[in-house]
Amino acid sequence: MTERQIIVASNRGPVAFVRDADGRVIARRGGGGLVSALSGALQASGGLWIASAMSTEDRERAGRVHLDPAMGAAGDGLRYLPFDPRVYDRYYNGISNRVLWFVHHALWDLPRMPRWDRATDRAWAAYRQVNGSFAEALAEEGAPGEPEPAYLVQDYHLSLVPALLRARRPRARIAHFSHIPFAGPEYFRTLPTAMREELLSGLLGADVVGFHTEGWAENFMRCCHGLPGATVNHRDRSVRWQGRRILVRLYPISVDAAALKEQAASEEVAAAERRIGRWLSGARLVLRVDRTDLSKNILRGFLAFEEFILRHRRWRGRVKHLALLNPSRESVPEYRGYVKDCLRTAERINAELGDERWQPIRVQVQDDYSSALAAFGIYDVLLVNAVFDGMNLVAKEGPVLNTRDGLVVLSENAGAFPELRSHVLAINPFDVGATAEAIATVLDMDPEERRRRAGGTREAVVRNRLEDWVPNQVADLEVSTRDR
Amino acid sequence: MTERQIIVASNRGPVAFVRDADGRVIARRGGGGLVSALSGALQASGGLWIASAMSTEDRERAGRVHLDPAMGAAGDGLRYLPFDPRVYDRYYNGISNRVLWFVHHALWDLPRMPRWDRATDRAWAAYRQVNGSFAEALAEEGAPGEPEPAYLVQDYHLSLVPALLRARRPRARIAHFSHIPFAGPEYFRTLPTAMREELLSGLLGADVVGFHTEGWAENFMRCCHGLPGATVNHRDRSVRWQGRRILVRLYPISVDAAALKEQAASEEVAAAERRIGRWLSGARLVLRVDRTDLSKNILRGFLAFEEFILRHRRWRGRVKHLALLNPSRESVPEYRGYVKDCLRTAERINAELGDERWQPIRVQVQDDYSSALAAFGIYDVLLVNAVFDGMNLVAKEGPVLNTRDGLVVLSENAGAFPELRSHVLAINPFDVGATAEAIATVLDMDPEERRRRAGGTREAVVRNRLEDWVPNQVADLEVSTRDR
Repeated sequence: MTERQIIVASNRGPVAFVRDADGRVIARRGGGGLVSALSGALQASGGLWIASAMSTEDRERAGRVHLDPAMGAAGDGLRYLPFDPRVYDRYYNGISNRVLWFVHHALWDLPRMPRWDRATDRAWAAYRQVNGSFAEALAEEGAPGEPEPAYLVQDYHLSLVPALLRARRPRARIAHFSHIPFAGPEYFRTLPTAMREELLSGLLGADVVGFHTEGWAENFMRCCHGLPGATVNHRDRSVRWQGRRILVRLYPISVDAAALKEQAASEEVAAAERRIGRWLSGARLVLRVDRTDLSKNILRGFLAFEEFILRHRRWRGRVKHLALLNPSRESVPEYRGYVKDCLRTAERINAELGDERWQPIRVQVQDDYSSALAAFGIYDVLLVNAVFDGMNLVAKEGPVLNTRDGLVVLSENAGAFPELRSHVLAINPFDVGATAEAIATVLDMDPEERRRRAGGTREAVVRNRLEDWVPNQVADLEVSTRDR
Repeated sequence: MTERQIIVASNRGPVAFVRDADGRVIARRGGGGLVSALSGALQASGGLWIASAMSTEDRERAGRVHLDPAMGAAGDGLRYLPFDPRVYDRYYNGISNRVLWFVHHALWDLPRMPRWDRATDRAWAAYRQVNGSFAEALAEEGAPGEPEPAYLVQDYHLSLVPALLRARRPRARIAHFSHIPFAGPEYFRTLPTAMREELLSGLLGADVVGFHTEGWAENFMRCCHGLPGATVNHRDRSVRWQGRRILVRLYPISVDAAALKEQAASEEVAAAERRIGRWLSGARLVLRVDRTDLSKNILRGFLAFEEFILRHRRWRGRVKHLALLNPSRESVPEYRGYVKDCLRTAERINAELGDERWQPIRVQVQDDYSSALAAFGIYDVLLVNAVFDGMNLVAKEGPVLNTRDGLVVLSENAGAFPELRSHVLAINPFDVGATAEAIATVLDMDPEERRRRAGGTREAVVRNRLEDWVPNQVADLEVSTRDR
């Protein structure tokens, strides 16, 4: 590994500051493999993590703080940038969640949305401003002189940061990683011309632009074809831009299997497992665990479960579908409408197919990670049918914890698909009929094949080591800038 | 040109049989340049036109009929294929209009639609069946021996015909032309796997696959990358498939300027022009002429006109927007909902911006070609802001007839865009703000520049001669099969 100091930038930091029962502000660690992966690397390099202050409590603690390593936080230091709440809202909800998330997951009803107008212009100005503040803070924090720090800029919230940082520190080593898909050129062209050029040239300020899969990387490069002055080389996956050669590389993220197993061993999870077991009362379990996001395809999941019961009557009363949904973006009207449609559809199916003794679908809209961990242990089918998904960690967490030779029914548009394809049941997420058949295939599968496939999935997940994720990026940063 | 007999296949034939006031079945010629272009070529080659019997009257006259050339019909002969109405409905509404039209124009609200299920399977079987009947009729009609006939298969309704016909007549010369866009690979992948492979291999049964623009041709070839066994050569625009080399070629269709001018010289059109003139009473005219199709972007057109008035108050009361909308696909729920939204939006804008003396928007939902021709003569701005459009003939018909140096505000996603780009005002059709500004730019433009641009548009339209459209395809058919 390198001697360089590592500096991470992401919208959401590794800890959130919350007020405890006594009114004191305390730090709470965020979940997820990303925090583990980055924290380890930061600790090793004496680095720093810069993030947005997302709440009043975050803003109170904004500025550089040193956290107790026992908190599991980001090593040496953490700096939270405070923003005017209105500017932050435009950057975060206006552009990041309502424009960039939608475009990269193809979520618009194009005959009606999007509609670029003056509100878009205002929100875009705020996005630029917040990205500019990040770039400024990053430029300040990196120690001057050689070796220049390695900046790891995270995700679609910070697409402009690489170019803005490059302008301030021309010799910096900058990597950008997209945790979400990247739109193909036709869909990307729905964006206003100026916005799409700024987004691409923003990312091309980096030395290395990273994605989870070849598909998203190809989409990005095909979008770059439309950027005047950029030259794309598909063979060696690089883009020439403003005299520099930018590498486009793949870093599919993994999960921290040991940490997951430790969390799943808690008494809270055991209690949740007993509760779910009582509800199941011997029935097989078709599980989904998702944020309530338009991209997750919850509605077609319910319809596929219905279709499965209608086509395979023998499973009536002998299988149940549990949907553990974590509430998300409740301020976005499209999301509220979607959740309502999902709940209404589940109710209709229960009314039409169920009876007093058997209600086929149970939906829980609640942040309940213990139940998710418990259910991962005991599913027969884990339904991951996302319309589009950058990676989808559920498809990796489930197999690590499952003890029933349960199998994943996996969307071919999820980033996890290329790694897991030979073990899972592949589906086209728009194909309700095929999804229904995939559920039936798993439930009717010969136990030996189930065991073999479940083992194969688990091995494919753990083979990709989370602890390599940052070093792989840092190593490519060295390669990309070797000839300077 | 060739000695070959030309045989045309299309879903809709050049004439429709209707019942007159006395209950007699009479032939009525369909409008549009396609009929002119193909009829001329058929007359020259002694060919035949095969189409679907779309109505009871069509079915009564099904079979081969010889039409009076004075009717302007398809030369030597016409054969209408009768189908079971339920099968026809599944083929025409179920697949052609609700699946293929939607996928190639990117019209779905992807979190909710499409949903492939058993109804899709049934409709797809009907699509296959109708395409099979066409292939059989075409194979029967072509004179045996050399030279083999040149088959010109039209549009997305008949995507499977080339391969099905090839199976029956391996040495036939077959061209397929798509009058609509072709989806890019990500959007195309929403289709069920089997359907997408059948569609691509169906088209690749042809020797020449034609599109209006480079963009649609590129999309088609990129979709072919995903077809196992196909090899795409982007440099010479060809696809190698089952031992044959298929040419992918561009044939942007044009309009029959002389015929248009003749039609526009009628007394009916003059009366319509007087009516529109009275309504305008001196105001400038922003015009749109469209079918009520989801792809036409009528809603954002109204919003852009509203935004234009709000941003440029000096035009209040001095400009009016006329939307001449031809009813289309009223049986499709998405279309009914869309038209309702459009009308409601126009009403809201009239209520909010208008007063007793000035109602800014007038919407007419009616098949009224005379008014369209009349309005083409006198617009200041012709708004063609389609979300996606294979060609869009309105963008070519308007400039041929306009006498006021009116300019086209043209979507960069319309097939007409590449030919007209240097003369029109280009817009991103999703950008309501930019569309509003383009309207203002035309209305405020220096008269000399307007004259120059209007003349340039007209010249670009007439330079592309409609009478070359068929011969160009037939010539490429000769080239493509020269080495046999």
